[in-house]
Amino acid sequence: MDKLLYGVAYYDEYMPYERLDKDIQMMKDAGINVVRIAESTWSTHEPQSGVFDFSSVDRVLDAMHAAGIQVIVGTPTYAVPTWMVKEHPGVLATTVQGPGKYGARQIMDITHPTFLFYAERIIRKLISRVSRHPAVIGYQTDNETKHYNTAGDNVQLQFVKYMRNKFSSLDELNKEFGLDYWSNRINSWEDFPSVVGTINGSLGAEFAKFQRQLVTDFLAWQVGIVNEYKQEGQFVTQNFDFDWRGYSYGIQGDVDHFAASKPFDITSVDIYHPSQDELTGIEISFGGDVARSTKQSNYLVLETEAQAFWHWVPYPGQLRLQAFSHLASGANMVAYWHWHSLHNSFETYWKGLLSHDFEPNPVYNEAKTIGRDFARLSPQLVNLKKTNRVAVLFSNEALTAIKWFGFNFTSDKKYNDVVRWMYDELYKMNIGCDLIDPSAESYEGYDVIVVPALYAASDALLERLNQFVQDGGHVVYSFKSGFANEHIKVRSTRQPGLISEACGISYNLFVEPKNVSLRDDPFEVGEEQNQIHTWMELITPTTAEVLAWYDHAHWGEYAAITQNAYGKGKATYVGCYTSSEVIRKVLESVMKEAGLWGADQELAFPIIVKSGVNEQGNTIRYFFNYSDQATSFVNAYGDGTELLAGTAVSGGHNIELEPWGFCIIEQ
Amino acid sequence: MDKLLYGVAYYDEYMPYERLDKDIQMMKDAGINVVRIAESTWSTHEPQSGVFDFSSVDRVLDAMHAAGIQVIVGTPTYAVPTWMVKEHPGVLATTVQGPGKYGARQIMDITHPTFLFYAERIIRKLISRVSRHPAVIGYQTDNETKHYNTAGDNVQLQFVKYMRNKFSSLDELNKEFGLDYWSNRINSWEDFPSVVGTINGSLGAEFAKFQRQLVTDFLAWQVGIVNEYKQEGQFVTQNFDFDWRGYSYGIQGDVDHFAASKPFDITSVDIYHPSQDELTGIEISFGGDVARSTKQSNYLVLETEAQAFWHWVPYPGQLRLQAFSHLASGANMVAYWHWHSLHNSFETYWKGLLSHDFEPNPVYNEAKTIGRDFARLSPQLVNLKKTNRVAVLFSNEALTAIKWFGFNFTSDKKYNDVVRWMYDELYKMNIGCDLIDPSAESYEGYDVIVVPALYAASDALLERLNQFVQDGGHVVYSFKSGFANEHIKVRSTRQPGLISEACGISYNLFVEPKNVSLRDDPFEVGEEQNQIHTWMELITPTTAEVLAWYDHAHWGEYAAITQNAYGKGKATYVGCYTSSEVIRKVLESVMKEAGLWGADQELAFPIIVKSGVNEQGNTIRYFFNYSDQATSFVNAYGDGTELLAGTAVSGGHNIELEPWGFCIIEQ
Amino acid sequence: MDKLLYGVAYYDEYMPYERLDKDIQMMKDAGINVVRIAESTWSTHEPQSGVFDFSSVDRVLDAMHAAGIQVIVGTPTYAVPTWMVKEHPGVLATTVQGPGKYGARQIMDITHPTFLFYAERIIRKLISRVSRHPAVIGYQTDNETKHYNTAGDNVQLQFVKYMRNKFSSLDELNKEFGLDYWSNRINSWEDFPSVVGTINGSLGAEFAKFQRQLVTDFLAWQVGIVNEYKQEGQFVTQNFDFDWRGYSYGIQGDVDHFAASKPFDITSVDIYHPSQDELTGIEISFGGDVARSTKQSNYLVLETEAQAFWHWVPYPGQLRLQAFSHLASGANMVAYWHWHSLHNSFETYWKGLLSHDFEPNPVYNEAKTIGRDFARLSPQLVNLKKTNRVAVLFSNEALTAIKWFGFNFTSDKKYNDVVRWMYDELYKMNIGCDLIDPSAESYEGYDVIVVPALYAASDALLERLNQFVQDGGHVVYSFKSGFANEHIKVRSTRQPGLISEACGISYNLFVEPKNVSLRDDPFEVGEEQNQIHTWMELITPTTAEVLAWYDHAHWGEYAAITQNAYGKGKATYVGCYTSSEVIRKVLESVMKEAGLWGADQELAFPIIVKSGVNEQGNTIRYFFNYSDQATSFVNAYGDGTELLAGTAVSGGHNIELEPWGFCIIEQ
Repeated sequence: MDKLLYGVAYYDEYMPYERLDKDIQMMKDAGINVVRIAESTWSTHEPQSGVFDFSSVDRVLDAMHAAGIQVIVGTPTYAVPTWMVKEHPGVLATTVQGPGKYGARQIMDITHPTFLFYAERIIRKLISRVSRHPAVIGYQTDNETKHYNTAGDNVQLQFVKYMRNKFSSLDELNKEFGLDYWSNRINSWEDFPSVVGTINGSLGAEFAKFQRQLVTDFLAWQVGIVNEYKQEGQFVTQNFDFDWRGYSYGIQGDVDHFAASKPFDITSVDIYHPSQDELTGIEISFGGDVARSTKQSNYLVLETEAQAFWHWVPYPGQLRLQAFSHLASGANMVAYWHWHSLHNSFETYWKGLLSHDFEPNPVYNEAKTIGRDFARLSPQLVNLKKTNRVAVLFSNEALTAIKWFGFNFTSDKKYNDVVRWMYDELYKMNIGCDLIDPSAESYEGYDVIVVPALYAASDALLERLNQFVQDGGHVVYSFKSGFANEHIKVRSTRQPGLISEACGISYNLFVEPKNVSLRDDPFEVGEEQNQIHTWMELITPTTAEVLAWYDHAHWGEYAAITQNAYGKGKATYVGCYTSSEVIRKVLESVMKEAGLWGADQELAFPIIVKSGVNEQGNTIRYFFNYSDQATSFVNAYGDGTELLAGTAVSGGHNIELEPWGFCIIEQ
Repeated sequence: MDKLLYGVAYYDEYMPYERLDKDIQMMKDAGINVVRIAESTWSTHEPQSGVFDFSSVDRVLDAMHAAGIQVIVGTPTYAVPTWMVKEHPGVLATTVQGPGKYGARQIMDITHPTFLFYAERIIRKLISRVSRHPAVIGYQTDNETKHYNTAGDNVQLQFVKYMRNKFSSLDELNKEFGLDYWSNRINSWEDFPSVVGTINGSLGAEFAKFQRQLVTDFLAWQVGIVNEYKQEGQFVTQNFDFDWRGYSYGIQGDVDHFAASKPFDITSVDIYHPSQDELTGIEISFGGDVARSTKQSNYLVLETEAQAFWHWVPYPGQLRLQAFSHLASGANMVAYWHWHSLHNSFETYWKGLLSHDFEPNPVYNEAKTIGRDFARLSPQLVNLKKTNRVAVLFSNEALTAIKWFGFNFTSDKKYNDVVRWMYDELYKMNIGCDLIDPSAESYEGYDVIVVPALYAASDALLERLNQFVQDGGHVVYSFKSGFANEHIKVRSTRQPGLISEACGISYNLFVEPKNVSLRDDPFEVGEEQNQIHTWMELITPTTAEVLAWYDHAHWGEYAAITQNAYGKGKATYVGCYTSSEVIRKVLESVMKEAGLWGADQELAFPIIVKSGVNEQGNTIRYFFNYSDQATSFVNAYGDGTELLAGTAVSGGHNIELEPWGFCIIEQ
Repeated sequence: MDKLLYGVAYYDEYMPYERLDKDIQMMKDAGINVVRIAESTWSTHEPQSGVFDFSSVDRVLDAMHAAGIQVIVGTPTYAVPTWMVKEHPGVLATTVQGPGKYGARQIMDITHPTFLFYAERIIRKLISRVSRHPAVIGYQTDNETKHYNTAGDNVQLQFVKYMRNKFSSLDELNKEFGLDYWSNRINSWEDFPSVVGTINGSLGAEFAKFQRQLVTDFLAWQVGIVNEYKQEGQFVTQNFDFDWRGYSYGIQGDVDHFAASKPFDITSVDIYHPSQDELTGIEISFGGDVARSTKQSNYLVLETEAQAFWHWVPYPGQLRLQAFSHLASGANMVAYWHWHSLHNSFETYWKGLLSHDFEPNPVYNEAKTIGRDFARLSPQLVNLKKTNRVAVLFSNEALTAIKWFGFNFTSDKKYNDVVRWMYDELYKMNIGCDLIDPSAESYEGYDVIVVPALYAASDALLERLNQFVQDGGHVVYSFKSGFANEHIKVRSTRQPGLISEACGISYNLFVEPKNVSLRDDPFEVGEEQNQIHTWMELITPTTAEVLAWYDHAHWGEYAAITQNAYGKGKATYVGCYTSSEVIRKVLESVMKEAGLWGADQELAFPIIVKSGVNEQGNTIRYFFNYSDQATSFVNAYGDGTELLAGTAVSGGHNIELEPWGFCIIEQ
C-alpha cells in the first residue's frame, strides 16, 4: 500500500434516486479515497442467466476515477439471484434443518457445481471487464465466506471420501473416534451415516474441520480465477469476519483464517464492536491482531461501523478514536459499511456514514476530520511494522471440541470466552501480541505464548510447546488444555496430557466450582474477584510451585494455579476459570519474569498504547484514551513529535488526552 | 337492535348427558335471551361428505324458541372435519413451518377451492334450513377468522398475480422494494421466489397485507352466500378478535377490521381481559372502541369471559362491572363464552358460566342479577350513541412494519405496546375516543388525533394529517411516525418525513437510550417516571417549541418532545418512549388546549366515566369504580336519576361507589 | 440373590488399548464381583447384517470367570447399527418432529418388523452363545426402554385398531372423548386422523397409554426369547429409568413400570441424583421404593453414579453413604455406570469409577472400602425384607393428563412435582413406604395411602379408595384428585368426584393463588411457609372438618385443607399447593392418627433411618447422616450390634455419625 485508504462500501444499485455525482462530492469532502462495490448485487449484474448488465459498475468506476477515488471490486457470489434458485433449488445448502429457503445471503452450497458454474461465469465476466479500468486497485472474492452448515447428500459423499483418504482403514477410524459406542461403528464405507444426526463428538468435529476446508478450497478457487485477470499493482483480498455475538467477538469457528488467507495478496477483515459507553477498543485490537498475524503483514479493515445501530451511534470523538485505533494495530485501510443507509430490505437500521436523508450529520462531519488527517499523515502512518514478543495460540479444533464438550450445564461460556478472558487482560496491560494457530511450526521471536483452552491438540503441537519452554520460553496455559488429541479423543494418560511434563502437574478429577475461591487471596484481588467459576481441575503438583490453592472444605488439598521451571523456561498452568483480576495478575507476573514489562505497561486501560515502526524507520506510538473522562500521562518515551497537532513533545512531560481523545507521537 | 341482548355460546353437541331443558331453565333464570350456536361443529352436522345431520341445531332452535330465547347461528367453517382432511390433506394451510397437521381449528387454507367448495355447501345447507326459523335473529360467518399464515404454492401464485397487478413493471417493484439488495432482484415474474424465506421487509409486509386481503375476501364471500338466505330483520356478523397476549391486548395484525367489517350488518368482537386484582376495564374499552368505530355504530360482544381460567375467576361484583362496561362503550349485547365448561378436549379449563357440574355457582348467581338489570333497563341503555372528539389513528401497515423493524435488540416492545401506551392514558383520563385507520378519508368531527408509531404511511395520509393540523386540529405523534412509506421504504427526506412540516422538527440520528431522562423533569413526574427507554430520536426543532430536552452527556443538545403551531392547529411530537406519567401529561396538556378538559377528566382512573345519548335523547353516564376499595365522587353533572337504584341524584352531591361497583345516571 | 452384588458396566469394546487383565485386577482390588456387558454394542457384535463377532463378549466372559467375577449380559438392541439404518431408514421412529436421524441410541420404532427381525436374530445369537457360560448369572433385555415417541403411519394404524378394539362404536368414542369439539368428530374409522397434531387431551392421553403398552409388549417379547435360553439360576431383568430432570426425579411417564416388570425375574433400575452439598438420598429412596414395589421384592441398581459429572463428583464418604443407602431400600446390587471414563463420543464427561487415565483416584479408592464391606456383611445385609404400612399411589394416566391440563400458565410444576412434594416429606420423616399404581386391586396391609394429584382415575379406583377409608384406612389426597375419569373426561358431578363422599367436601371453583396464605397459620410454620402457590380449590365442607381456611379478601370463605371421618377411617384433602412444611405437618398428623409415629420419626432428616428384616430374621437398621456436619442420636431401639465396626451398642446410648457417615445396627 502506498498510502492510507479511507473508504466506504458504495451501492449505486440501492439508491432511491440518482445520487452518484452528489455522493462523490460528499465523499471527496470527507477524504474518502476508495470505495468497495459489487459484492452483493449479482441479480442486478446478471438479471437472467447469461444476460449481463454491468452498467452500474461501469458508471461508478468512471465517475470514481474522474474524482480520483479508487475502487475495490467484489465478486458478487455470496448472494445468489432469484433465477438461479428458481431453476436449481438444489444450489441452496441443505443443513441439519433441511433444505434451504431463498431469501437471505450466504445460503448456498459452496460445493455445488451448478453454483460454481454460474459463479465462475459471472466472476470472469465482471473481472475481465473491470481489470484494466484505471480506478480498480484490487478485488475482493465473495464476502464473509463460510460454509453455511452445508451438509446435504453431496457434501456427505465428499466427506466420506475425505475420511477414506484420511484413515487407512475403518478399523482405525472406529478405534480413533470410538465408534463402537452406542453402536455407531461403521463396518463398511457404504454404511457411513449422514453426520447431521451424529452424537459422536470426534465425528462431528471432523466434519466441522472438513467444512472449514470447503471454505479454504472455495476461496482459493475464486482467487485462481481472479488472478487470471489481475493486473500489476492490483491485489486480491477477502473480507473475513469473526465469531458474531452481536459484534465481532472472537475467533471465527467456521473458517480457518490462516489457511484460507494463504492465496490472497492481503488479508482484510470486518470489525464491529460495542460503542458509546461500552467502547473499549478490544475488538479493534483483537480483530486487527488476527488479521495482521495471518500474513504477518499490514491488513485492510474492509468494513467497520459508521452510525450503525441505535446502540452504536458514536459519541463525539469516538469515530476518530476508532479509525486511528485500526491504524495502530497495523491496518492500512479503514472503510465503513456503508456510505448511505438502506431504505429497504433487511439492514435498514444498520446505518452508514449518511442517514437515510443523505444530509451531513455529526458522524459524517467527524469522518471529514478523519479523512483530512489520514491524507495528511499517511506518509508517517502507512505500513506500520509491528513486532510482538507475545503470541496467543488459538485453535479452531479446540473451539469446535468445546462446542461438543462444554464447561458445564449451567454456564454459557464457550471457547472464545476463554480466549477473550486472557486476551483482554493483555490488551489492557498494553502487551502487544500476535495470534498463532496450530499450523505455526516455529515460535521464534516469541518470549511468551498464551494458550487458552487448547482442548484438542496433536501430540506434535504439545511437544512443540514443551520444547518452547525447554528452550527458555514462557507458556501460560488455561484449564482444559492438552486434554484431548486432534480427533477429540481424550488422552488416556494423566492429564493435562503431554504438557504435564512441562507444567509439573497432574490431575484426574475436575469439578464445577460452587462457592470456591483461592485460598488466602494470593493475588490480593479482594473477595469478589477471588472467586472462581465454571470449571476447576483438582491439580496435584509434581514438580510445580503452587501459586494458588483452592479454598474449599473438600477440595482444599488441590492446587488451582501452578508454575513450573522446565529447561530454561517456565510453564504456568491456570486450572480454573478465574476473574479478570486474577488472570491479569498471573499474566503480569509472567510478563515481568519474561522481561516484557516496560513503560507501556505502567500505563494501562483506559490508556491504550500501540506502537510500530513506520516506513521512515521511526517509532510511532499511539496513546488512546478509551474513556469519557479526560486524562493525562507522563511521556516516558523521550522527545518526539505529536503528529496530529504537529507539536514537539518532551520526555518526562505530561500529555493531556481528551475524553475519547488520542495522540500520535513519532520518535 | 330493539333490546339489550344477554347471551351465551351454547353447544348441545358437547353435552355429557341430555341437558337441554334443564339448561334452558337455568338460562331463563339468569335472564339469558340469546344463544350463539353451531360455529364449531361441522363434523357433527356433516358426519360424512354430503351427509348432513342438523338434528342438534333443529332441537336447540325449537327449544329456545319455545322458551323465548333468540339464536345466532354460526357457519361452522373455522374447524374442518376429519373426513375432509383425510381425503384432501391439501386443504390445510402450508405455512413457513411446512404443511399443516390435523387437530386444531383455524388451520386451513382459506383460499383452497376444495375447502371453499365444502364450506359453501354446508353454509347453504345450514342457513337455508334455519333462516326461516322464528328463533333466528342473525348469523355469524366463520369465527375469529384470520389467514392462519397460509403461504403454500397456490397462495404464492396468487400473490405473484396480485403483485403483477399492483406494479406496472418489475423495474418499479425492484426499485420500490429495494430488491437489488443481497441479490434479491426479480427480473422475470417466473423467478418470483416464495416469500416464506424473504429477508426483504417490504416484500414481507406486502405479503402480510395480501394475506389480510384474503381474510377480507373470504368473509365477504361468506356474507354473500348467507345474504341469499337472510330474512328481514336478521343480521349477519363476524366475531373479530384482537392481538392476543394471553388476553385481548391490541390491534389484530392479521385482519383489517375496518375493511373486513364492511359487508356485515353489524360488527361483533370477543374481548378477554385480566381480572381479579388486574381488572382495569381497558380492554373492554379498547376492544369496544375498535368495534364501534368500524361502522360508527353499536356492536355486539359475542364472547367474553365468565369464570374463564383460574387467574380470571371474577371477584364478587366484577362480572356485573364488566357487563355494564361493555354497554357503556356502545355494546348492545354481552355474551359469555360459554354456557358450560367443557369436559374434554382442549379448552377444558376455559370455564363458562357453569362449572363442569352444571350447578349454580357464585359467578352464575351474579349473572342472574345482570340479566335482570339488562331486561329492566334495556329501554334506557340500548343503542347508546357516542360522539367522540378524539381519534386514535392505528395502522396495520405500521404494525407489520414494526414487526420487521423493531425498536431495538433488547426490548420486546411492539407496535401495540405503543398504541396501548397512548390509549391507556386516554382511558384513564376518561377521554372517549374512536379508532380510525388509514382508510379514513375525513377527520371531520375530531379535534385531536393521537397517532402511535405510524411507521409506514403513504404521502397522502401524512398530507391529510398535516392538513388536519393546518385546519385547526391537534395531532399527537409518537416517535417513529412518518419514517417509511406504505411499502416500508424509508423516506429519503429529512425525518419525520412529510410531517416534519407540521411538527416543525427534523432528525437524522436516533439511538437506544441508556440512563437517559428528560432534562429538569419538565413534567414533574419524579425521577423514575422521568426516565425514557427503548427508543429516542435526536430531534432538532426548526419552528417547534421544545417541551422536553434529553438529559445526557452527549445527546443533551437534542429535543425529546416538541410542539408546533401550524396553520390554525398544533402538532405535538413525542420523540422517545416515555413513562406512562409523561405521555399522560403530554396528552393532558393537548386536551386542555383543544378544549376537551371537563368534569369527566377531573375524575380519573380508578373512577371511569363513559357516556352517550340514549334513544330517548337523554344523556346516560356510567361511573365505574375499577378498584377493590369503595370510593365516592361529587356529581358535577346536575340532577338526574340513578337507574340501578331508581333514585334521584342531585348535582353537587356525593355519590358512593362500592368496590368494583358502579352507577348509571340518566339526565 | 445369594449375596450382595457390587458391580460396574464394562465395555471392552470402548477401550483405547488392551486393558482387560489390568482392569480385572483393579476390579478385584475394589471388590467388584459382577460386571454388566454388551447392551450398547450391536454394531461391534454384528458388523454387517448376519455377520457376527462376539469375540469381545467371549474374552470378557472367560477372563471374568477366571477371576471369579460374574456377568450380566445385555441384549444389544437399544442402539441400532449403521448398516441397518442405511439399508432400512424406516426403522427409525417417526415422531411429531418427522422422520428420525441416525446417531443417538433409542431412536428406533420398537414396533417395526425390520427392527424386530434383526433384534430377534442378534438376541438369539448372543444369548444362545453365552447362556451356558459359567460366568453368566443373568440377562438384561434392552436398556432404559421407552417408546421414543414413535408415531409414524404404521404406529397410527395400530393405534386405530387398538381404539376399534377398545370402543364398541365410534359414537361411544366420540361421546367419551368429546370429539364434537372443534369438529374433531370421527364418523368413519377410515377418517381417523393422525394423533400427532391432536388438541384433544383424551385422545392424546390415550395414545400415550397405547405407546406405554408398546413398551410393555416389546419387553415381554424380548423376555420370551431370552427365556428360551435361560439356564437354571439365571435371571432376566430390565434396567428401568425415571423421569429425567438432569437426574432421576420421579415416575417415568413413558413406561408403566408395574405392567412392564411382570415378565421379568427381578426388577432393576438406574438411579442418578444430585451430589456434593445437594446429596439428600431422596432419589435413592424413591427409585428404590418404586423398584422394590413392582414385585414386592428386592431389586438391583444396575446403574448409578461413580464420579459422574463435574457437579456430582462425590465428597469423601458420599460414595459409601450412597451404596449402603441403596441396600437399605432393598437393593441387592449396586453397580456403577461405568468402570472407566469414555475417551470419545458423547458421554465423555459422564465419568466412571476410573478417570480417563485408568489410575486409582479418590473415588475408586473409596469404592474399595465399599467392596470389602459388601463382601464382609453380605450375609447380614442381602435380601433385606421390608414391610411398609404406607403406600403412595401414583398414576401414569394422571401424569399424562396433567401434561395436557397443567396447573396454570406461569408455573412449570408437573405431576411429579406433586408426587415429590408429598414423598419427600415422608422420606424426611423416616416413614417407609411402597409405591402402588391403579392396577393394585387390594390395599391390604396398608394403614395410610398418600395420593398425589390423581387427576385421571376410573370410578372403580375411586370407589376402592373410598372403601379403604370406610374400612378404617387413612387417605391423604392432594388437590386435583378425582377430577377426571380414566379417559381424561372431567366428571360432570360435584368435585372432587366420587371421593367427595369420603372427603366430605365439594367445590366447583378453583383459582390461581396470588398472595394467598392459610388463615391464622394453622400449622405454625411461619409467614413464608404458610403461603400457598400454583393452585387452589375453593372448597365447601359438607361433613368434613376444616384444617385450614384461605386467607384472602374474596376467597376467605372457602376451605383449603379438610379432614373427614368416613366409616372407620379418615380422608384428608389438601386443596392447594402448600409449602413443604405445611404438607409435612398434615402428613405428620395423619401418621400419628394412624399409629405410625415411633422412634424412627423422632429422628428426622438429615438423619435417615431405614430398616428391614434379614435372612436371619433379625432387624437391620441403617442410620444415615445426610449432612456435612457430624451428628449423633440416642439409640432408642435397644441393644444390638453395629455391623461396620462390629461393636455392641446399647439402648439409650448416644451414637455418633460422621459427616456423610452411617451405621448399621442388627438386632
